[in-house]
Amino acid sequence: MTDTEPVLRRGRGSEIDDDAMLDIRHAGTTSSDPTIGAEPDEVDYSGFQGLGQYDDFHTIDWQRDIAHALKGFHDAWSGWVCVLLVGICSGVMAGVIDIGATWLMDLKFGICPSAFYLNKEQCCWSSNDTLIDIAGNCSLWLSWSEVFTLGKEGAGAYVTCYLFYVLWALLFATLAARLVRMFAPYACGSGIPEIKTILSGFIIRGYLGKWTFLIKSVAIMLAVASGLSLGKEGPMVHMACCTGNILAYLFPKYGRNEAKKREILSAASAAGVSVAFGAPIGGILFSLEEVSYYFPLKTLWRSFFCALVAAFVLQSINPFGNEHSVLFYVEYSKPWIFFELIPFLILGIIGGLIGALFIRCNIKWCRYRKQTRLGQYPVAEVVLVTLATAVVAYPNVYTRMNTSELIYLLFSQSQAGPGVYTAMWKLSLALIFKMLVTIFTFGMKVPAGLFIPSLSMGAIIGRIVGIGECAQDESCITPGLYAMVGAAAVLGGVTRMTVSLVVIMFELTGGVRYIVPLMAAVMASKWVGDALGKSGIYDAHIALNGYPFLDIKEEFEHTTLAADVMQPQSNKSLSVLKEDSMSLAEVEEILETTEHNGFPVMTSREPQYLVGFVNRRDLSLAIQNAKSRMDDVNQDTLCLFTNNILDPPSLLHHYETTPIQLGKIVDLAPPTITDKTPMETVVDMFRKLGLRQTLVTHEGSLLGIITKKDVLRHIKHLENDYSELFN
Amino acid sequence: MTDTEPVLRRGRGSEIDDDAMLDIRHAGTTSSDPTIGAEPDEVDYSGFQGLGQYDDFHTIDWQRDIAHALKGFHDAWSGWVCVLLVGICSGVMAGVIDIGATWLMDLKFGICPSAFYLNKEQCCWSSNDTLIDIAGNCSLWLSWSEVFTLGKEGAGAYVTCYLFYVLWALLFATLAARLVRMFAPYACGSGIPEIKTILSGFIIRGYLGKWTFLIKSVAIMLAVASGLSLGKEGPMVHMACCTGNILAYLFPKYGRNEAKKREILSAASAAGVSVAFGAPIGGILFSLEEVSYYFPLKTLWRSFFCALVAAFVLQSINPFGNEHSVLFYVEYSKPWIFFELIPFLILGIIGGLIGALFIRCNIKWCRYRKQTRLGQYPVAEVVLVTLATAVVAYPNVYTRMNTSELIYLLFSQSQAGPGVYTAMWKLSLALIFKMLVTIFTFGMKVPAGLFIPSLSMGAIIGRIVGIGECAQDESCITPGLYAMVGAAAVLGGVTRMTVSLVVIMFELTGGVRYIVPLMAAVMASKWVGDALGKSGIYDAHIALNGYPFLDIKEEFEHTTLAADVMQPQSNKSLSVLKEDSMSLAEVEEILETTEHNGFPVMTSREPQYLVGFVNRRDLSLAIQNAKSRMDDVNQDTLCLFTNNILDPPSLLHHYETTPIQLGKIVDLAPPTITDKTPMETVVDMFRKLGLRQTLVTHEGSLLGIITKKDVLRHIKHLENDYSELFN
Repeated sequence: MTDTEPVLRRGRGSEIDDDAMLDIRHAGTTSSDPTIGAEPDEVDYSGFQGLGQYDDFHTIDWQRDIAHALKGFHDAWSGWVCVLLVGICSGVMAGVIDIGATWLMDLKFGICPSAFYLNKEQCCWSSNDTLIDIAGNCSLWLSWSEVFTLGKEGAGAYVTCYLFYVLWALLFATLAARLVRMFAPYACGSGIPEIKTILSGFIIRGYLGKWTFLIKSVAIMLAVASGLSLGKEGPMVHMACCTGNILAYLFPKYGRNEAKKREILSAASAAGVSVAFGAPIGGILFSLEEVSYYFPLKTLWRSFFCALVAAFVLQSINPFGNEHSVLFYVEYSKPWIFFELIPFLILGIIGGLIGALFIRCNIKWCRYRKQTRLGQYPVAEVVLVTLATAVVAYPNVYTRMNTSELIYLLFSQSQAGPGVYTAMWKLSLALIFKMLVTIFTFGMKVPAGLFIPSLSMGAIIGRIVGIGECAQDESCITPGLYAMVGAAAVLGGVTRMTVSLVVIMFELTGGVRYIVPLMAAVMASKWVGDALGKSGIYDAHIALNGYPFLDIKEEFEHTTLAADVMQPQSNKSLSVLKEDSMSLAEVEEILETTEHNGFPVMTSREPQYLVGFVNRRDLSLAIQNAKSRMDDVNQDTLCLFTNNILDPPSLLHHYETTPIQLGKIVDLAPPTITDKTPMETVVDMFRKLGLRQTLVTHEGSLLGIITKKDVLRHIKHLENDYSELFN
Repeated sequence: MTDTEPVLRRGRGSEIDDDAMLDIRHAGTTSSDPTIGAEPDEVDYSGFQGLGQYDDFHTIDWQRDIAHALKGFHDAWSGWVCVLLVGICSGVMAGVIDIGATWLMDLKFGICPSAFYLNKEQCCWSSNDTLIDIAGNCSLWLSWSEVFTLGKEGAGAYVTCYLFYVLWALLFATLAARLVRMFAPYACGSGIPEIKTILSGFIIRGYLGKWTFLIKSVAIMLAVASGLSLGKEGPMVHMACCTGNILAYLFPKYGRNEAKKREILSAASAAGVSVAFGAPIGGILFSLEEVSYYFPLKTLWRSFFCALVAAFVLQSINPFGNEHSVLFYVEYSKPWIFFELIPFLILGIIGGLIGALFIRCNIKWCRYRKQTRLGQYPVAEVVLVTLATAVVAYPNVYTRMNTSELIYLLFSQSQAGPGVYTAMWKLSLALIFKMLVTIFTFGMKVPAGLFIPSLSMGAIIGRIVGIGECAQDESCITPGLYAMVGAAAVLGGVTRMTVSLVVIMFELTGGVRYIVPLMAAVMASKWVGDALGKSGIYDAHIALNGYPFLDIKEEFEHTTLAADVMQPQSNKSLSVLKEDSMSLAEVEEILETTEHNGFPVMTSREPQYLVGFVNRRDLSLAIQNAKSRMDDVNQDTLCLFTNNILDPPSLLHHYETTPIQLGKIVDLAPPTITDKTPMETVVDMFRKLGLRQTLVTHEGSLLGIITKKDVLRHIKHLENDYSELFN
């Protein structure tokens, strides 16, 4: 019997040394640290303080938690009310961020002197100009060169605007990075890999806390406005999950039960995508396909409701102040023709290639950051990348504009700029720039999503292919469709999403006629991507960070048996508790000399039979509790792991003090398997039942134990990645 | 230990006595009956004939089958190739049926004398008329009154057309009913309840066979053309699953393994919806939400691919010969306004009410049919209902036209007919008629789907509400939107689908801007429906037919323990096999005196420990096989359920013949639980791991067994429906 917790921690300490990971460990030991979103740490639970809770960095035991939840007070409606609140909060959160980010973004270019709090679009509404140019400028809105009376044209104006653009970008990015570094280290990145890990049953305390939520909300506006190649969509999923986590504490059924809380988190992640893209159905599917681990149909319906409410609230807030209920609405409705399937498939293949290349380069760079001193200067890194991005982006009109606008432009039917060849040339440069800069951006210590950068890369490629196609053939469809398909292909290559991606794409664009082209491209992209590199960007980051995530997607196809994997192997012996014959000293010795997460309880008589299983945390707490409550506890006090009444004489003969009754912390139905069980069955059980451990028996006698971490280590071992993660 | 198989059969014999159910039992005993789609019954499998196969009406053991599949030859691509073929066949099947049904439907009204094989629309293409009236008539197309030179107008013409309409309807319906009765009794109904049951792990041999496929293909065209209130969408899902089943036999990995075959069937059902509605994404979600039981992500991707291929093939065939890639494409794109959410929610509530009412009436009528002599005259019933339908339908223009056309008309922006008040009056009559007639139609012995009738009822209600709204307010949206929302609401109330329904609706209509209204109505409909009656129409029919379906959707919230459910209770003893001390006579006696599906194998020495589990079928086959292969088998021959080498002297001392080696049919890793395991955990394990049985132990010793049917009986018992199903 073993628990690999210490091994993992040691491994992490020696190999993974960026400050977020250090902070994760830090957060585990000092959860009262005000900088980390604190959660109620001690909850009174069935008599013992903290019993039934989990320590940080522990995997949760679905079986036990689900059973507890059912036994607890039963209120079917509390779940619906909770997701209703999560939906409302997510909608409001997205509205505020959209408004804030747009205003900050426009601040880089100029200001509305009559009402500084208006963004460019709002400013121009009050203008009577009929002349709003392609960039959306009007007379009421002043660019920085105009503010300093340098006029609109000319070198001076250009340099002023350029300078202001770069300076604002640096200011925003520095602020974002410092905020994250100082107040909420968990607020960086997209958060989706961590949410996947949390939903698979891992505890990272504070990752979904209120500080993370608040700081990430502010930092994402700044980061988006800084012009870095990142999107706010991934972080919105993370923030929606934060609201889910925070609101779950209002409902004891969910707040006190890690397994039930994950149902709320699944719904919250659906709400996150729902508000990020205005795609409620896509959000549900994203939660189902990409994020969630344990997704019963009840969660599907709650997610549906949560995404609906969130989308409705956001639509009512109407942050962009227009009628666009669909983000990148496409106007063209010409049917596509048969032969076009070939370029669509080619776009899919290109998308898969770019996705795989991107993942490889990004992971390489992130590993380099971890292993060198670069990781110790996260703010400096952000400043440098922002400087490079801003300086290079400004001269090219396609990279200067905000990425959402670029995508909208590429999807639309309009001709893309002044003359096809100039446009293509500029677009190609923009593509190379976006690719390079996104590799360095994703993984920095600022909130950063990948959806919008990926979509923009794909849209550029698609537009280029589309223009190429249309140059040959008069009857061809608008290049906007190619941009749409290309965008889906690259995003598919990066994330390996399928169904959810197609749904998000047609919720984004309203292009219901183009489902088949989208599907074909996404499928091709997924196949090519999977052939070149096994996992999507989120799974790759999970592996990079060494989170204990048991991938539900991959089939386990080996012929090892439970006996090969269980601990202890060979000579070592299994630490067990005896039902009714152990003194407190013996129990405490076992607790001190081992680091296992729990212990099997056996009968005292020979032959020994398995009675149940006790968690280490429950046991420690129960003993503490007994010591403080009972007066006559000493080293010889008997610990009874049974509810059966014992024969009093035999009891009193050996022990003089009242025994400690520990019967109720014993799980009398621990999962067991035989030593001959194939590991594919074991892996299947761990995945589907969400086990934390299972006991291994042979003809009725206990042989050993397999923990989730044993399973993960075994899978890694078989994949020959053993050395990479655990040495 | 018990197996409720005989109980179930007896119960079925006494209570459920319609001919389909009788035929199911019949099919179980004589699978060589040519009228029932035969499947390869005997497959050579690991040395014994038929080992690893299942008898009819047995639940399958996912764990075992999945493990076998993995051990067998591993070819990741065979799955993709198989779903590719399924997709192609489904697309072709749907194309043929669409073309055939349209032609037959138009035949009721008239003929194209210049080319009889053309339907009305095709006929009119060759016409040069600019005058194609509202019903799509043109000069080349002759109604039956014109064929008999009675002119277009006047009483004589009307009566002739009426008469032909009724006669054709009767002819088509009789043909369909007789075909089904004579050649493929499984071809009736929508098939979705049975597919749900099959996918949950039940065997109904021939249900997905080639005869069912062929007969259902022909009969559904006739049934649709007869004007009965039914749709071809549900049957298309069934037929797509038939192609999946048939094609799976080309790939041993899938054809020989019931668990793996279900992955193909899940994908096939997605393809079925994909071609039925032209809604590939909706199909995947339908398969996920409504039909499938065991839906890993790999199946999601295969379903995606399968649905894509099917949609593409159908689009290439282009059965309707036009550019409608979207079935009921809506033109309006005005955004909906806030206050409209109230009527949408009201529509949702009405939809839920109608759905619950419909389910209740339909189930009552189906039960009445089963319990009375009516069930013995299926063809006569079909003829009578068709007569009533045709006679009542013809005079009202909205019921006379084919239902798809009606839905298209109601969804469209056009004013619905001559004057609003006449239209509303006629629509109300049509609604009442549709509701009544559909209650009697669904469950008759013809292929019959429910989607289109439900959509039409909802569309009528929505249109009426919409016209009402618009009469009050000039600025209101087109009543078509209300029809769309109403249609979704009623279909939601009947089937209780959520996400998949919304996706199907917007794939059908292209109304991506109306996701939030659709979601709100569907959610309201589901809530109201669930409050009034627990299950959707498919689950209600599953319960009516007494299929052993363990619903994955409902939470099991009781506090019983495994010990309360396991068999044997109290005094009876458990039939077990001993590892190495039983003679052939003893083993055969156990086989003869019990009816259990399998037997635990125990050590021979005291105390007895559990070694493994043997299936009855495997055991019988292995013994037969041994008898035919070995010469010196007699009643005293030792049966060895172990692979261990025994001490030869002790062996020879007792037995004189070579022992029968049965070690390899013993499952050495049978699932076990303790007697203290809560039943919610047990139910969870049965659902998620797809178990057929689990052994119950207490402190290492075997107490009893819980089979899937014990679990079902226990759930029924707790629901107080015990008497209804099992007495």
